[in-house]
Amino acid sequence: MATEKTLKARSPRGFADRSAADIRATEEMVAKIRAVYERYGFEPVETPLVEFTESLGKFLPDQDRPNEGVFSFRDEGDDDSSEWLSLRYDLTAPLARYVAQNYERLPKPYRSYRLGWVFRNEKPGPGRFRQFMQFDADTVGAASPAADAEMCMMMADVMEALGIKRGDYVIKVNNRKIWNGALDGLGIASAKHLTVLRAIDKYDRLQLGGVRELLGRGRKDESGDFTPGAGLEPETISEIERLLAAKEIDVLSGAKTNVNQLDVLEGSRLTVNQAYRTGLDEVRAIASHCVSAGYMTDRITIDPSVVRGLEYYTGAVFEAELLAEIPNEKGQPVVFGSVGGGGRYDGLVGRFMKENVPATGFSIGVSRLQAALSALGKLKTAVGSGPVVVLVMDKARTGDYQKMVADLRAAGIPAEMYLGDSGMRAQMKYADKRDAPLVVIQGGDEKAKGIVQVKDMREGKALAAGVADHETYREARLGQGEVPEGELVAAVTRMLGRAP
Amino acid sequence: MATEKTLKARSPRGFADRSAADIRATEEMVAKIRAVYERYGFEPVETPLVEFTESLGKFLPDQDRPNEGVFSFRDEGDDDSSEWLSLRYDLTAPLARYVAQNYERLPKPYRSYRLGWVFRNEKPGPGRFRQFMQFDADTVGAASPAADAEMCMMMADVMEALGIKRGDYVIKVNNRKIWNGALDGLGIASAKHLTVLRAIDKYDRLQLGGVRELLGRGRKDESGDFTPGAGLEPETISEIERLLAAKEIDVLSGAKTNVNQLDVLEGSRLTVNQAYRTGLDEVRAIASHCVSAGYMTDRITIDPSVVRGLEYYTGAVFEAELLAEIPNEKGQPVVFGSVGGGGRYDGLVGRFMKENVPATGFSIGVSRLQAALSALGKLKTAVGSGPVVVLVMDKARTGDYQKMVADLRAAGIPAEMYLGDSGMRAQMKYADKRDAPLVVIQGGDEKAKGIVQVKDMREGKALAAGVADHETYREARLGQGEVPEGELVAAVTRMLGRAP
Repeated sequence: MATEKTLKARSPRGFADRSAADIRATEEMVAKIRAVYERYGFEPVETPLVEFTESLGKFLPDQDRPNEGVFSFRDEGDDDSSEWLSLRYDLTAPLARYVAQNYERLPKPYRSYRLGWVFRNEKPGPGRFRQFMQFDADTVGAASPAADAEMCMMMADVMEALGIKRGDYVIKVNNRKIWNGALDGLGIASAKHLTVLRAIDKYDRLQLGGVRELLGRGRKDESGDFTPGAGLEPETISEIERLLAAKEIDVLSGAKTNVNQLDVLEGSRLTVNQAYRTGLDEVRAIASHCVSAGYMTDRITIDPSVVRGLEYYTGAVFEAELLAEIPNEKGQPVVFGSVGGGGRYDGLVGRFMKENVPATGFSIGVSRLQAALSALGKLKTAVGSGPVVVLVMDKARTGDYQKMVADLRAAGIPAEMYLGDSGMRAQMKYADKRDAPLVVIQGGDEKAKGIVQVKDMREGKALAAGVADHETYREARLGQGEVPEGELVAAVTRMLGRAP
Repeated sequence: MATEKTLKARSPRGFADRSAADIRATEEMVAKIRAVYERYGFEPVETPLVEFTESLGKFLPDQDRPNEGVFSFRDEGDDDSSEWLSLRYDLTAPLARYVAQNYERLPKPYRSYRLGWVFRNEKPGPGRFRQFMQFDADTVGAASPAADAEMCMMMADVMEALGIKRGDYVIKVNNRKIWNGALDGLGIASAKHLTVLRAIDKYDRLQLGGVRELLGRGRKDESGDFTPGAGLEPETISEIERLLAAKEIDVLSGAKTNVNQLDVLEGSRLTVNQAYRTGLDEVRAIASHCVSAGYMTDRITIDPSVVRGLEYYTGAVFEAELLAEIPNEKGQPVVFGSVGGGGRYDGLVGRFMKENVPATGFSIGVSRLQAALSALGKLKTAVGSGPVVVLVMDKARTGDYQKMVADLRAAGIPAEMYLGDSGMRAQMKYADKRDAPLVVIQGGDEKAKGIVQVKDMREGKALAAGVADHETYREARLGQGEVPEGELVAAVTRMLGRAP
């Protein structure tokens, strides 16, 4: 194949390759999450990665420029017609399209889960990719707060299934209607609502002081960049702070209960506003379901600072937050924060139908959660997870080596014959890179004696890594060494600790 | 959420949604394929769905028009620069980029498998999608025919792991160099090679007669469309037919052996051509490895009509073919044909490096193979695979129902409370749609007596579908009916035949 120039091997920024360890860790996580979703009666469904751009709609936060946020391209039809297609930016907008398209056929309420890649045409950064994985669960066709409560309880169960201890995470609940009503009730112009909500959304990162600046004149960050504020009056800011005070009640310590949080929200003069009242009633109903099932308040709590960025939410909003401190890129321990979220989007399916269809859901950021679990040491790979490697000591005898490999494979043991063109030293190095548990060697001397050498590669590695003691590999050490040719499979089986 | 108009819920042509049954069937298949790949010592790796367009190169067949074949879009950088990105059209071109980028770090030879979606911007048709799934295995850095032989043996093992009986499939081997050498040796101009190879590639569909027409003046198909031929002289066509005669030796019947096929190729006057000789030697070496391991000729055979469409192949080419007859869209039994293929692409990694890196691989068309297995009845879903559904008989008592569901889930039993707003009849219909194995009912009468009703939904369904006899559900039938409230979990566990 003639090529004019040598290309540089590179990937577009924000698109990452995944190693075997990454993939296996994701699979382990995903299996645990799926088991919880299935226990809650959700069933899988998948939509394609490409949709009509108009089907997806424009619900991403901070989309000030056209063409920002999604990857789009034109689809040329046969008849010179063309339409815009986009890579999906989440798994919710495609679900709405799917449900509308299959409405008559689907059971209602329709409970589904969906795992897949989503794409954001944004500036990538550390831990921020343009292709990342989400794992969502949604109930479409149920207006009941019981459906929202179930989402929150299920996410709590997911966190625990992943090995995150109770108290090291929290599922936070709020309702968009509370803030919509509050801002209206405070006489804040609609045009300013988004700026105010974005300020509130930054509570966890900037604390009350930072939010206060953003609600007022503005805030200068450490780098000296200035973010203009919403320009609210001091008394308006105070009223917002009074609502946020509910957040400050540390429910996880057990000192207080959610009743107090509801009391704070209930005590506001804003309860005269209809939307505010409705939002509060819905939060109370969700809390009540969670109390019945025993999930309140050690796993699920009310938090008025939860806003969520996507614009399609219409009522309840949730967020799953890790409270454990995890070292950041600079090695400083920081609270990891959000690993997923969701809420009620009663208008999204209705974009495709004459009637509105209530819906609620939760999305887990798999890639992000995996980074957290990995930092917490919850995802470990065993030493020696590669295949048994049969070395090629005599190139004229590859048929014999091939036969050994075939016998091992037939016994269900991952095995391979070295396929390169190098000496024993390079072959041993290869076996080490492959994380081979055992290496099988048969040179001329061994062949003459009718034996093979089986060498254990794990013990030294595991001891060096400090992940096992000598006892772990006792069986293997006893088996190591010369083995009669005909007993290779039995010896390897025993050394790997497999059932024969 | 105000929308001006109601959108039509639709997907772009060639992009399909996948149901729970589809997804589960794919998972079952993929797990079986993965187990074989791992047994052969291959490890997983994943590349992103988006690559630089130039990294992918142009190797798709029939790409006469620009922008054809791949989905591409521009990536606007921060500095007004922009580059073309594309959705990957296969899993081989991205692997070449990945290996070149990580060359020093990777074990060599590098054996990997990759599962993922690929995209073709082509005209979709029945069973032909623009997004489909492939599951590839590749060995990069091994020039040895043993690596090619291993690919073929592994694919034979994959077919059998999927339940396809020996004799119902065949792995065919050929070598591009044979045809390159043959066409050169026959004095056919390079410009005509592609037309000739495409004609040969159609052998399975059109038989010898059709190929002969396409090599000569051309061929009119059933619809009356005329395909111009390569315009070869009759004696040149005869020579090509002599090579194709090797294909006609029915190795699977056991009547002949591959030696005969090699004899046919060896007997040609074209052996004076260097490329032809090299190709023949490589095929012989692959065959010899397969003979040693006992895979020849009942599973792997030589077939000179195998060409493969992708342009990056440089030597050996393989194809996995299902020989079983499967009803087509019109209900006529037809040989299903190719479900995967591959070959040696020694130039692809070299596009990114100063040196050439030998490589060989195999790609399984997961979506296509799944269609075949499904038609062959190899993928079946059990009746009653949905969750236990707890009906809401009294809306004031959802707390009690929620509690029952929580108890069942805590015992690991998929369960849900009905979340809609309908009467008992609709709820039973819902449970049926969800394929619920059992339904739990507690109205006022039952509550007063301290019992719940557990109803089995599977028996009637299974008997109607003819997939089980009465004996299968004996346990469940005995358990069906009234159960003391406190024994709900135990009763459901027993009825589902789960370990308590």
